Amino acid sequence: MYVLVTYDINTESTAGRRRLRQVAKVCLDYGQRVQNSVFECSVDEGQFRLLKHKLEKIIDDEVDNLRFYRLGKNYKSSIETMGQDRSYDVEGPMII
Amino acid sequence: MYVLVTYDINTESTAGRRRLRQVAKVCLDYGQRVQNSVFECSVDEGQFRLLKHKLEKIIDDEVDNLRFYRLGKNYKSSIETMGQDRSYDVEGPMII
Repeated sequence: MYVLVTYDINTESTAGRRRLRQVAKVCLDYGQRVQNSVFECSVDEGQFRLLKHKLEKIIDDEVDNLRFYRLGKNYKSSIETMGQDRSYDVEGPMII
Repeated sequence: MYVLVTYDINTESTAGRRRLRQVAKVCLDYGQRVQNSVFECSVDEGQFRLLKHKLEKIIDDEVDNLRFYRLGKNYKSSIETMGQDRSYDVEGPMII
């Protein structure tokens, strides 16, 4: 399943900037960064639960916000982009 | 139809910061801001085309990026949130 993760982390404090780095690092383990605070992750239910569990331990519930959007099977046809697109097709050939 | 709009606008220049304000302003005309650069819009196909047309005229294709995700009919069950949630149910009762 394809899941979109978006987040707003309060970076007014040093702790907040650290949380921002940690959240991005965890999300990178599960998917690709398509915008600064937007990740697209191809995960199964178990991986999704683990991802959320890890993120829950990082964020400050009082000042941060995370949103998860399940995009479903036909996610490719549901995504459009404009301008500089830094994403890649996670199911496409990986040219090394 | 429910559409998610996410954007990365390059704000290194004054012009970039102006584009950021303009993009947010246009998106507010079509939906709600759920995170700093994430909007959820309830639009029909015509409104969606108009929204994209307006945004296309604002952004700088070389340095900015917009992504649009069609969330489909069952969007409510496809969204989860963690921490401070500033969204509201666009189809719910509006208490004034």
